[in-house]
Amino acid sequence: MADVKKVVLAYSGGLDTSVILKWLQDTYNCEVVTFTADLGQGEEVEPARAKAKAMGVKEIYIDDLREEFVRDFVYPMFRANTIYEGEYLLGTSIARPLIAKRLIEIANETGADAISHGATGKGNDQVRFELGAYALKPGVKVIAPWREWELLSREKLMDYAEKHAIPIERHGKKKSPYSMDANLLHISYEGGVLEDTWTEHEEDMWKWTVSPEKAPDTPTYIELTFRKGDIVAIDGKEMSPATVLAELNRIGGENGIGRLDIVENRYVGMKSRGCYETPGGTIMLRAHRAIESITLDREVAHLKDELMPKYASLIYTGYWWSPERLMLQQMIDASQTNVNGVVRLKLYKGNVIVTGRKSDDSLFDANIATFEEDGGAYNQADAAGFIKLNALRMRIAAGKGRKLF
Amino acid sequence: MADVKKVVLAYSGGLDTSVILKWLQDTYNCEVVTFTADLGQGEEVEPARAKAKAMGVKEIYIDDLREEFVRDFVYPMFRANTIYEGEYLLGTSIARPLIAKRLIEIANETGADAISHGATGKGNDQVRFELGAYALKPGVKVIAPWREWELLSREKLMDYAEKHAIPIERHGKKKSPYSMDANLLHISYEGGVLEDTWTEHEEDMWKWTVSPEKAPDTPTYIELTFRKGDIVAIDGKEMSPATVLAELNRIGGENGIGRLDIVENRYVGMKSRGCYETPGGTIMLRAHRAIESITLDREVAHLKDELMPKYASLIYTGYWWSPERLMLQQMIDASQTNVNGVVRLKLYKGNVIVTGRKSDDSLFDANIATFEEDGGAYNQADAAGFIKLNALRMRIAAGKGRKLF
Amino acid sequence: MADVKKVVLAYSGGLDTSVILKWLQDTYNCEVVTFTADLGQGEEVEPARAKAKAMGVKEIYIDDLREEFVRDFVYPMFRANTIYEGEYLLGTSIARPLIAKRLIEIANETGADAISHGATGKGNDQVRFELGAYALKPGVKVIAPWREWELLSREKLMDYAEKHAIPIERHGKKKSPYSMDANLLHISYEGGVLEDTWTEHEEDMWKWTVSPEKAPDTPTYIELTFRKGDIVAIDGKEMSPATVLAELNRIGGENGIGRLDIVENRYVGMKSRGCYETPGGTIMLRAHRAIESITLDREVAHLKDELMPKYASLIYTGYWWSPERLMLQQMIDASQTNVNGVVRLKLYKGNVIVTGRKSDDSLFDANIATFEEDGGAYNQADAAGFIKLNALRMRIAAGKGRKLF
Amino acid sequence: MADVKKVVLAYSGGLDTSVILKWLQDTYNCEVVTFTADLGQGEEVEPARAKAKAMGVKEIYIDDLREEFVRDFVYPMFRANTIYEGEYLLGTSIARPLIAKRLIEIANETGADAISHGATGKGNDQVRFELGAYALKPGVKVIAPWREWELLSREKLMDYAEKHAIPIERHGKKKSPYSMDANLLHISYEGGVLEDTWTEHEEDMWKWTVSPEKAPDTPTYIELTFRKGDIVAIDGKEMSPATVLAELNRIGGENGIGRLDIVENRYVGMKSRGCYETPGGTIMLRAHRAIESITLDREVAHLKDELMPKYASLIYTGYWWSPERLMLQQMIDASQTNVNGVVRLKLYKGNVIVTGRKSDDSLFDANIATFEEDGGAYNQADAAGFIKLNALRMRIAAGKGRKLF
Repeated sequence: MADVKKVVLAYSGGLDTSVILKWLQDTYNCEVVTFTADLGQGEEVEPARAKAKAMGVKEIYIDDLREEFVRDFVYPMFRANTIYEGEYLLGTSIARPLIAKRLIEIANETGADAISHGATGKGNDQVRFELGAYALKPGVKVIAPWREWELLSREKLMDYAEKHAIPIERHGKKKSPYSMDANLLHISYEGGVLEDTWTEHEEDMWKWTVSPEKAPDTPTYIELTFRKGDIVAIDGKEMSPATVLAELNRIGGENGIGRLDIVENRYVGMKSRGCYETPGGTIMLRAHRAIESITLDREVAHLKDELMPKYASLIYTGYWWSPERLMLQQMIDASQTNVNGVVRLKLYKGNVIVTGRKSDDSLFDANIATFEEDGGAYNQADAAGFIKLNALRMRIAAGKGRKLF
Repeated sequence: MADVKKVVLAYSGGLDTSVILKWLQDTYNCEVVTFTADLGQGEEVEPARAKAKAMGVKEIYIDDLREEFVRDFVYPMFRANTIYEGEYLLGTSIARPLIAKRLIEIANETGADAISHGATGKGNDQVRFELGAYALKPGVKVIAPWREWELLSREKLMDYAEKHAIPIERHGKKKSPYSMDANLLHISYEGGVLEDTWTEHEEDMWKWTVSPEKAPDTPTYIELTFRKGDIVAIDGKEMSPATVLAELNRIGGENGIGRLDIVENRYVGMKSRGCYETPGGTIMLRAHRAIESITLDREVAHLKDELMPKYASLIYTGYWWSPERLMLQQMIDASQTNVNGVVRLKLYKGNVIVTGRKSDDSLFDANIATFEEDGGAYNQADAAGFIKLNALRMRIAAGKGRKLF
Repeated sequence: MADVKKVVLAYSGGLDTSVILKWLQDTYNCEVVTFTADLGQGEEVEPARAKAKAMGVKEIYIDDLREEFVRDFVYPMFRANTIYEGEYLLGTSIARPLIAKRLIEIANETGADAISHGATGKGNDQVRFELGAYALKPGVKVIAPWREWELLSREKLMDYAEKHAIPIERHGKKKSPYSMDANLLHISYEGGVLEDTWTEHEEDMWKWTVSPEKAPDTPTYIELTFRKGDIVAIDGKEMSPATVLAELNRIGGENGIGRLDIVENRYVGMKSRGCYETPGGTIMLRAHRAIESITLDREVAHLKDELMPKYASLIYTGYWWSPERLMLQQMIDASQTNVNGVVRLKLYKGNVIVTGRKSDDSLFDANIATFEEDGGAYNQADAAGFIKLNALRMRIAAGKGRKLF
Repeated sequence: MADVKKVVLAYSGGLDTSVILKWLQDTYNCEVVTFTADLGQGEEVEPARAKAKAMGVKEIYIDDLREEFVRDFVYPMFRANTIYEGEYLLGTSIARPLIAKRLIEIANETGADAISHGATGKGNDQVRFELGAYALKPGVKVIAPWREWELLSREKLMDYAEKHAIPIERHGKKKSPYSMDANLLHISYEGGVLEDTWTEHEEDMWKWTVSPEKAPDTPTYIELTFRKGDIVAIDGKEMSPATVLAELNRIGGENGIGRLDIVENRYVGMKSRGCYETPGGTIMLRAHRAIESITLDREVAHLKDELMPKYASLIYTGYWWSPERLMLQQMIDASQTNVNGVVRLKLYKGNVIVTGRKSDDSLFDANIATFEEDGGAYNQADAAGFIKLNALRMRIAAGKGRKLF
């Protein structure tokens, strides 16, 4: 067991991390600093203060990170139209590197030599927290209680809590059967009935969105304004990044947008089913592709598309704080200089429908594209040579008797 | 002007290709063979026979290519989860290489030395037809009237038709303002009001799908059975490929599924707006990803995702009959050996919702993935070493003072 | 400690693996099966039999795997022009999966439940052995003594050997200061003075090649015949794969070819300096590129080049027995159908100079390529349209005032 | 024929471009501005002035572009370890965009509406000149005489020259049978006996390098200092970029370094044989990889390697002035921040042998890499978990009976 003097714990205030807090104090006989972040998960963070105090914590950090989260993490990721395995918008993945960064900043401020978190040894989150921590403070010690302790069943955890007088909330509401994670970008569900891939998810599992069935019968139209690839205004009203995302979550949730039920491949090697609600993100992705469609050069767009799966994997697997992610980001950000303009969307019962896009930086040229007379803007005869030379290597091969199959 | 003896014309029976037929006879003083294909466009192909005969054509080919189209072109493409520029399902692109192949086969059968088509000099289709033709018969001559003649406006075309007594259908229905193309996979719309990217598409433009608003208020559930990556049954009933796609079009169309409005980058260098209805294809793509999610190895899936944009571009730009497409296809097909099983979908007002997937070849292991006790199936302690070594290069760099940014 | 009944040990007969043999018997109280392979390392393998017998081993496997090694591992890898990090020909990496495969085959034949090897916990070889073993027999136990035992210094190892009467060879020749590995493809050197990246390697380290300085003053010419991407004859004389490689090693070694001194990135996260002698492989790579240069389609060649670094990394990191390597191999092998012909090389003091290549499957067309009159084989006017349309997107962008930088 | 008022001609002063100059004046009845560049081709550029004057040219530009060429084109390209098709160092390709840029700058300065060049319609250079020109000045007219005129044989060209009193140099030396191009990075040879891919190149073809046979019998050692990926000093002596390259050409040429004989794939679709001398470039590439090997992060290096073929193709095919090349360059340049240090090379009869590399920014950690005791810098036990989890997906698949092949 490592010799630890002071540890910064990512502390939610809930039962699990409260038990961890106590367990750290007892097991490592060390001082614990708590760090609780408001990432837009929709729960009060202040109650964590009293709980931490009650357990003797002297250094308590409670941060509102919502703007930093959207501005420096969510927005850069969306510039790449990032999707993992064709479906997942990486709502959990993108929050972890920010938490890792704050854990290390607080460790540096408080002179702590270790960090700790409540992620299990089976999931991706442990990797995301710890890769970030090691990249930012290579000598840091990491304590991952779920990989170390004996409290592996809920019963043992509850026993430990009772034995150590850790308050267990009992306010009538039943414990959710799902393992959940939420932040401004999404809420996720794992476990429970989802562990059978054939069983349909339950309607009452979803928290943020109404079902398409219950969404309004009339569509909602919105216009999103982009500047350098980021949304800066809704319906012409300028807003901060976190406000944009919160507002899109609201509108999207009301219209039944952004539910997802997938089986994904975890970094640690297993397949896992997850359900996700990402109302605002689903709207953002569609809108971003639409504004890029008129403002990005074709080859730039294609290069981005070819690199996107790699970039998405880097974020999914926890390499946000790696030099290769930063190198890719340089390229992605450079591509967004002219991604400015407005996209009009129709939202209706789960559908995000693009109905218009315009930009002062548009590369769409109606004179050239038109089916009508173009007044010489484009010389159709050029196409013959274009095709002939593009075909030349195949014509030579076929002429020499090369078989295709 | 090339010396042409006999030319095979891709002939729809409509006004444009009828004018081309006449123009070829007059301009090249050559024999014309017509080829008309039923690709599921939903129009009668037999009327083309009488029209061709009336213009003196002796060799008339009218083929039902629906099964070949879906089996050998659409299905192979969907094995790769192919999407162009993040949105477009390549409905037009994938039909062209089959037409090119048949044009060349017929040229070989009839001793023709040239082929001709009605695609304009501004679009992708000319490239797709001609690259295919050159790859399959390198010495073939290609006549693309739209790049050669003077009949560039509709008025001139109509004048020519009248002058040469080419029948113009006047059956009350107004000429559509859109340039359209249809086959079993999709119907496309270009031109008209779509030439302004900010103008919303018109509701009455769409032909194959009802709007989400008008779709039924109750969802439709279907189960799709996959064998080696292809759908072989709907709700347990085995069907041929073309029947599967026709049936999915019907079901999807009824549920308002598969509409798309995008601005895309053409191979010839311009941006162009297109609207597409792909009801069956939209369902197939979602379902295929779902069955792959439980049956494909992670790294195989990721490699497919990384290569997909390249593969999609090859199809979009007309390189179906190229050695590089064939090489990629080998790899894609090899990946599908175990892509077997059933996917359950809920279709509702434009939404395609995956609600379950199962397979005898599933790699999902509930024992390992579970949040409950796993009886030692997975050793959480392994994760510590996994993370430590994955972090090592970053720890060394940070330890030596290397800055990330 | 795992409960092990019988373990198959990759046994060289040298001191280290002899100590491991004894240590396994003592520590795990289990039966040991030895497996010794002739991969062309240039040392007798038979002496291992007596040594194993002397330590009470009953099941002793000694295999000549040279032909299988070159035919099924080296040749497939060279079809991809595989180089790791721009320099390394993967001589060690490519032998490991064959050893892993044989270990598992022998485990299955002898009813063993474990395998063991002498690779350290810092290197790539442990990964290559074990990933292969797990992929081929998922429940196998792996014993990696260097990660478990206390004998981490040479002194302790020698003490253990003496204490257990393990014969230590003392035949006058000084122990090499380098850690070496050899097989038909290469011999490698690590450690010793190489651990300072600035220190020049010592001339007397190299075993297989003369220095360029000492190589003959007159060049050697050879002609290599390829069939489906593999060398099947030298100077017109057909030979088996292992004979080809042995012969090329001899010729290359005499001409000072194939030395390399690099710093590479290990899979476990550290940089490491290695020196390699790969005389035959260096010749093969150059010759293979030369025969491909006239027989491969351009886009096929480029696609191979783009995927090669990924393929090389898979082999370097031990994923030979993974589905993604097999999928890539399908594509690579498919590309080699027409890679037939002869390459003439001039070998001189470290240089491998291509002086000619010819093939019945050549796609080189002198009529088209010529600077002289080509009799209409190529229409230069086609180039204008080709360039105009390839430039169109950039012309539109510049025309709209888009700045490049 | 386009209406042209003033045209800027890329003018070498040689016969071909002198004929073009005259032909432009006569055919287009327009004013001609000449532009002659010193790119280090090793020929006097001043004589072009008198020749141009003699033909009535009023605006004559003669520029020494050597420093700009190496600093802004060659060096950025070498940061990516750029090689086309595994062999070619792109010596011709990289000079063309600079000439295109100057042509357009001069057109803007002189009010010219067209540019002209002496590249043929079969090669890559026409594409490189014209794509650059169109990207930088979209409305520019391009006159490519070789694609337009009738002077397609040397005889006709000579006749035209004589008829128009264009001076033909006759200074005893026979006209080279090769088509050559030279600049500070390389000299190239095409045509002549090279048009048969089996015929060995002739020793007296080479101009810049001695043969390895004639190179000195003792090696030359040099030390190259890198700063942000570029060489800034030789043997500790700081030099400008062009001086570095000239000096490396001298040293390399004396040691028989940098000859290449390949068959390459041209952008216009044909295969073509070329011989190249790139003495300095060959040294630079090797040295750059060596300095990167100790200063670049592994994943950054691998990402660069994966993107390099694409980047090389962009340069080869003339897309230097494209947004996608610029986007890639951003990423490449960002990767070079820490590529600082010194590489020691041994040059001997065609061989470039790395014998040492050192850097204050080295990521090589001898403590961790060592085969000796490392004092706990690396925990070998971590490797077990690392391997176990990396193998997990394969273990699960094999455990479920999934076959690999």
